[in-house]
Amino acid sequence: MIETVLFAELAWPQVASRIAAGAPIFLPIGATEQHGRHMAMNVDAVLPTAIAERVARRVGGLVAPTIPYGNRSQPKTGGGRAFPGTLDLTAATFSAVVRDVLLGLFRHGAQRIVVLNGHYENISPAIEAIELAFDAIGRDRADGLIVLRLDHWDLIAPGTIDRMFPDGYPGIELEHASVIETSMMLALRPELVDLAAAVDDGPAEFVRWERYGAPTPEVPASGVLSMTKGASAEKGEWLLHDIVEALVAAIEREFASNQRGPA
Amino acid sequence: MIETVLFAELAWPQVASRIAAGAPIFLPIGATEQHGRHMAMNVDAVLPTAIAERVARRVGGLVAPTIPYGNRSQPKTGGGRAFPGTLDLTAATFSAVVRDVLLGLFRHGAQRIVVLNGHYENISPAIEAIELAFDAIGRDRADGLIVLRLDHWDLIAPGTIDRMFPDGYPGIELEHASVIETSMMLALRPELVDLAAAVDDGPAEFVRWERYGAPTPEVPASGVLSMTKGASAEKGEWLLHDIVEALVAAIEREFASNQRGPA
Amino acid sequence: MIETVLFAELAWPQVASRIAAGAPIFLPIGATEQHGRHMAMNVDAVLPTAIAERVARRVGGLVAPTIPYGNRSQPKTGGGRAFPGTLDLTAATFSAVVRDVLLGLFRHGAQRIVVLNGHYENISPAIEAIELAFDAIGRDRADGLIVLRLDHWDLIAPGTIDRMFPDGYPGIELEHASVIETSMMLALRPELVDLAAAVDDGPAEFVRWERYGAPTPEVPASGVLSMTKGASAEKGEWLLHDIVEALVAAIEREFASNQRGPA
Amino acid sequence: MIETVLFAELAWPQVASRIAAGAPIFLPIGATEQHGRHMAMNVDAVLPTAIAERVARRVGGLVAPTIPYGNRSQPKTGGGRAFPGTLDLTAATFSAVVRDVLLGLFRHGAQRIVVLNGHYENISPAIEAIELAFDAIGRDRADGLIVLRLDHWDLIAPGTIDRMFPDGYPGIELEHASVIETSMMLALRPELVDLAAAVDDGPAEFVRWERYGAPTPEVPASGVLSMTKGASAEKGEWLLHDIVEALVAAIEREFASNQRGPA
Amino acid sequence: MIETVLFAELAWPQVASRIAAGAPIFLPIGATEQHGRHMAMNVDAVLPTAIAERVARRVGGLVAPTIPYGNRSQPKTGGGRAFPGTLDLTAATFSAVVRDVLLGLFRHGAQRIVVLNGHYENISPAIEAIELAFDAIGRDRADGLIVLRLDHWDLIAPGTIDRMFPDGYPGIELEHASVIETSMMLALRPELVDLAAAVDDGPAEFVRWERYGAPTPEVPASGVLSMTKGASAEKGEWLLHDIVEALVAAIEREFASNQRGPA
Amino acid sequence: MIETVLFAELAWPQVASRIAAGAPIFLPIGATEQHGRHMAMNVDAVLPTAIAERVARRVGGLVAPTIPYGNRSQPKTGGGRAFPGTLDLTAATFSAVVRDVLLGLFRHGAQRIVVLNGHYENISPAIEAIELAFDAIGRDRADGLIVLRLDHWDLIAPGTIDRMFPDGYPGIELEHASVIETSMMLALRPELVDLAAAVDDGPAEFVRWERYGAPTPEVPASGVLSMTKGASAEKGEWLLHDIVEALVAAIEREFASNQRGPA
Repeated sequence: MIETVLFAELAWPQVASRIAAGAPIFLPIGATEQHGRHMAMNVDAVLPTAIAERVARRVGGLVAPTIPYGNRSQPKTGGGRAFPGTLDLTAATFSAVVRDVLLGLFRHGAQRIVVLNGHYENISPAIEAIELAFDAIGRDRADGLIVLRLDHWDLIAPGTIDRMFPDGYPGIELEHASVIETSMMLALRPELVDLAAAVDDGPAEFVRWERYGAPTPEVPASGVLSMTKGASAEKGEWLLHDIVEALVAAIEREFASNQRGPA
Repeated sequence: MIETVLFAELAWPQVASRIAAGAPIFLPIGATEQHGRHMAMNVDAVLPTAIAERVARRVGGLVAPTIPYGNRSQPKTGGGRAFPGTLDLTAATFSAVVRDVLLGLFRHGAQRIVVLNGHYENISPAIEAIELAFDAIGRDRADGLIVLRLDHWDLIAPGTIDRMFPDGYPGIELEHASVIETSMMLALRPELVDLAAAVDDGPAEFVRWERYGAPTPEVPASGVLSMTKGASAEKGEWLLHDIVEALVAAIEREFASNQRGPA
Repeated sequence: MIETVLFAELAWPQVASRIAAGAPIFLPIGATEQHGRHMAMNVDAVLPTAIAERVARRVGGLVAPTIPYGNRSQPKTGGGRAFPGTLDLTAATFSAVVRDVLLGLFRHGAQRIVVLNGHYENISPAIEAIELAFDAIGRDRADGLIVLRLDHWDLIAPGTIDRMFPDGYPGIELEHASVIETSMMLALRPELVDLAAAVDDGPAEFVRWERYGAPTPEVPASGVLSMTKGASAEKGEWLLHDIVEALVAAIEREFASNQRGPA
Repeated sequence: MIETVLFAELAWPQVASRIAAGAPIFLPIGATEQHGRHMAMNVDAVLPTAIAERVARRVGGLVAPTIPYGNRSQPKTGGGRAFPGTLDLTAATFSAVVRDVLLGLFRHGAQRIVVLNGHYENISPAIEAIELAFDAIGRDRADGLIVLRLDHWDLIAPGTIDRMFPDGYPGIELEHASVIETSMMLALRPELVDLAAAVDDGPAEFVRWERYGAPTPEVPASGVLSMTKGASAEKGEWLLHDIVEALVAAIEREFASNQRGPA
Repeated sequence: MIETVLFAELAWPQVASRIAAGAPIFLPIGATEQHGRHMAMNVDAVLPTAIAERVARRVGGLVAPTIPYGNRSQPKTGGGRAFPGTLDLTAATFSAVVRDVLLGLFRHGAQRIVVLNGHYENISPAIEAIELAFDAIGRDRADGLIVLRLDHWDLIAPGTIDRMFPDGYPGIELEHASVIETSMMLALRPELVDLAAAVDDGPAEFVRWERYGAPTPEVPASGVLSMTKGASAEKGEWLLHDIVEALVAAIEREFASNQRGPA
Repeated sequence: MIETVLFAELAWPQVASRIAAGAPIFLPIGATEQHGRHMAMNVDAVLPTAIAERVARRVGGLVAPTIPYGNRSQPKTGGGRAFPGTLDLTAATFSAVVRDVLLGLFRHGAQRIVVLNGHYENISPAIEAIELAFDAIGRDRADGLIVLRLDHWDLIAPGTIDRMFPDGYPGIELEHASVIETSMMLALRPELVDLAAAVDDGPAEFVRWERYGAPTPEVPASGVLSMTKGASAEKGEWLLHDIVEALVAAIEREFASNQRGPA
């Protein structure tokens, strides 16, 4: 069978030996959400999956199947549920999925797990999921289990942001479907991006509150919260490089004292 | 952007127009479950996804992201949770995921949905999920929504079974990780199968009850419930052909009276 | 007080001593579901209750109160919810009831429990219920608890089927409200059967998928999935004999190594 | 088939016609709970079932299957969960069962439902269940549905209490397993009562609070909260008469303006 | 910082030392519910909070933040949800809040907790909450935790009732918004009472059942179930005195054997 | 009765008339969470409550009872659950409370609701709560209901931040228990702050991920994430002024087109 870091592409004896050797397990959590007229809806799943694969190859890890549906899309962070095509889960459902997968990994002896997120709205219910998993296991019976949780964009180096946005950075809060995500998609899955279809109707200028029961007219009609101009595959590789290196370093730091087996 | 039938590889305006034109939407539901020493753990996800893609190309449909984690694995149908690597969801979690995705599709106007299953244990909680979706919508407000649910193996033609098993068919209830699944995997993803690693320790002879709190020693140690001998990519294509043709026919029959738009 | 195997007809000190002596506890799970124009709606409750009583008398067991409402009726296995009178539970509710009763029995020290099912749709949520009970107890704290789960019809001997259906067996999947159930009801509760009211509108020829949001016209209007012709009390006793003997043997086999007290 | 008021002993066409004619439906809710050393544990199920049957015969109603497991037993009202044999449900489970049955009855067109309770601890979660059913239906779509809820002991006439307790009434709050319940069981199911086994260790003198995490030593060891002395079948009939007459009157009063069909 | 018995008005090191010293923790549970035309809607929160503060000062305890929303208001005990302004929780929500707070207190080492209730409808779901907390902790791992639960009105001395109602007591079941509650509010928060606005339209004469799907015309239009006449601050102090003294005594009795630290 | 904007301090007829007149309803959502050695644990409840009261007086609104327990405290935003005294709710419980209160307000006819948050971890489950409320109501039946949700700190004017932090702003993400919150508490409840007890052990320098199953040593031992130095009541009034003015303006803008009655 193939050389792979994908958990589900292995046969069970291979998974068993990798877990026994202390392999970190990555759980990418994504979304199926509009990402502008110029890009596929699987961006939030593609990016953490690809990053997890690169890191797993570096650290001897495995990548569990990506959760392809995320927590409810919100207007100010993803355009919201009004956009056609966005398919999401309630917070309770999303948390339950992540909790159940974590419990399964723990049951099989995994003690080093990285929940790698690609969708802003997943942050809070993923935290809740991890808490629920520890609640179910019992804090005093978790036996060395460590779960790291992070958002890939948080690992971008400040210097890279400066290089990418010489005219000023609109801020991560407007990056949905914008230069950062578009660049990484161009680097990873260029066939899922069509810059010619991009519409320049941003950036959004949001009010400092949210409305429910009424539309959020500040969301650009394209679904791109700031802009796509300037996106490139080369910049995408800059970003992926930052994130992968930072994540490798994080894993080495956090899991060093938790070694099991030869790794 | 690429020609694709994958829902999440489209940009949102494309999804919108395809749904408006009446495209059937396929939701493959899978699992991450041991499938013997010779095969990857993603069989139950790979098969319904591949079948859905083939059928979608025939009928102008779209394939929503596959749910990669299934309902709790059971010894008599999948080897059970004791096998390393099997990651599953509680029934409530699994049903909630399927329900939420169905509600999202309905919200976007989809009226023809096919839930295509690859994992035995998913049958009942997928039914519950569909019922819960209709409960949430309101039976009297569902406005033409039709959801079909099926298991791919049920569409295999009896004649094909006879050709595949000239010495007698052990029965579908023992087909987990066995000739049928292995053959289709050889046809679709041969790199995920290593027949040399197959162990001939079946078929299982189960008692007519289930035990909890005690092991199920009748499960062959390999995790293959009947046998892998005789599996081939050619036979895999026979099976896929049967299933695809039967599903195309089913869709034409069931959705004919439910036409929307030009299709 | 009376000689009885019914758990709830005993006073509490009697239950305490019977559990302490290692009595197996039977939990019959039924349904309130249409069973044709010729038969009462309590068939799925009456049969496992009666079988459990017979077996309990043989093995020194007790029969806990039958759960009279089952998981959602489906067209292909029970006619579906469209039939007047069918009262059912969501899967989550049904599983919660079974889980709670199992937890209660475990709390009182019962270690040998048999969940005996009479309604096809109960199978999967009863399995989930047992899993949930072990989740709640903690797999490592279950302290010898063994739960068996079975469907009474699975214990019918193949030879008996041959005797009953000399012209060929339509298959268990069509037996809802048909010869097998009707015969056992004639043996046990003849006053709840009126063969004169039976309508001969089967057998059902189902398509190989399920539809939701649309009717299932293949269900015979009577609600009988195959046929009632040929049903008799005598045949009912054949069936009950098979099931009782097989269950007694199963209990002796499975619980032998789990003896507590003099039994 | 037999003359019966038991919903589940009818075939579906009979249920359909009875509901169409406006038959009130009774749902007895019980428990499996210790009732002293002298009495079976099914008292809380037997009494409301028997009362419902008597009333149903008077008013042309039907009695749905009794829910045999009740909400968690508490020391001050039922002796508590420490008594062997008491099997109960969490409040959420109990409410879900009652809600689901009510929704099923509403789906079939029933508009006059009586939830008749025999177990003190069921009161509050039964109310919640009814509220949840109306929540699920939609208050503005309930279309004439009326649900009455009551506890059988509330319908005993004050004069009867005076006749039964010439030396003073200990109060309904101590009546668990005591003279009232014992008398009605003697009238209805004398084989389930053994007055010779009764122990005279009451009445309980409870403190005015409840303790959790510590025992309730005030509960008499027998489980009888006040006394059994003076119980008789004759008095049981007095009580049943009161309750049946009052319930018939209540139904006539409450459902008069809600007539459907000839009744 | 101030001398206070309010848990949330302390800084965390102060809470830590008070819990370590064995301080009993009071959790007042209230409601936001109509209390007549003459009184604020926070009565059920104000009363247990004030009582808890008085008792906490006596026994060295702390008062956790009052839960201001209670379980669903019912017509016969609080006027019901039809009254404008009443804001309540489902039973499941209410129980979850109380459970979570109890689990938090246990996590911090608290072992003596008093759940002090001011709203009739909270009784049952508060009991369930305590049971759920023990379920989550594990009965065998609760490590000395004792939770008392009580309703403030149960601690009123019989003699005080006689003094207050020389012409006869309508009974506690009609005391909603009536003389007892009004008197205590006059003693504690006179600015929230306007006796001039009281309407004399009681007492209610309820039928012995509850109706759902239909109004409860027996509820007086004012929302006062019996009467306000005769209420006074002086009587309020009589009542508060009774309750505080009885609760101090109860705590001394119940927690004596559970001493930790110097208290 | 008193002049008040507190919903629960009114009698029901007053609430009824205020809602009928279109009064916006404020729902403050808080927490009981450590806020350093120098400050009470109710900061997250006190601040949004006080702000809501000031705004309500300006716009003729009412303030519903503050929810005093918040969603699970996290190390990077509130110090985490390891600090003594922090009492929190699971996300599901917190969302359920907010949902139920919103549904109650909607039931009474309120159409203009402001959920005003004081605790970072509440953001996501409050959003979910609002979504769940609209799910329960039905998006098409919400009949003009508008819910605004905001965090008070988002309404601080940038110029005020500059005035407060002439040496540079550590950023809102470190403001837990720091200058901003301390200043507002000094303005509102000075008796709950003891600057002399403040410890200067910040600011926190967090890693860009979260750990579960292991401590977060980056949290300063005091629980103050950045610093308290420079806090003053005067600055607190600057902040409150900003927030109140911005919220008044937001309400005028958002609710202008939703007028009901004379306001």
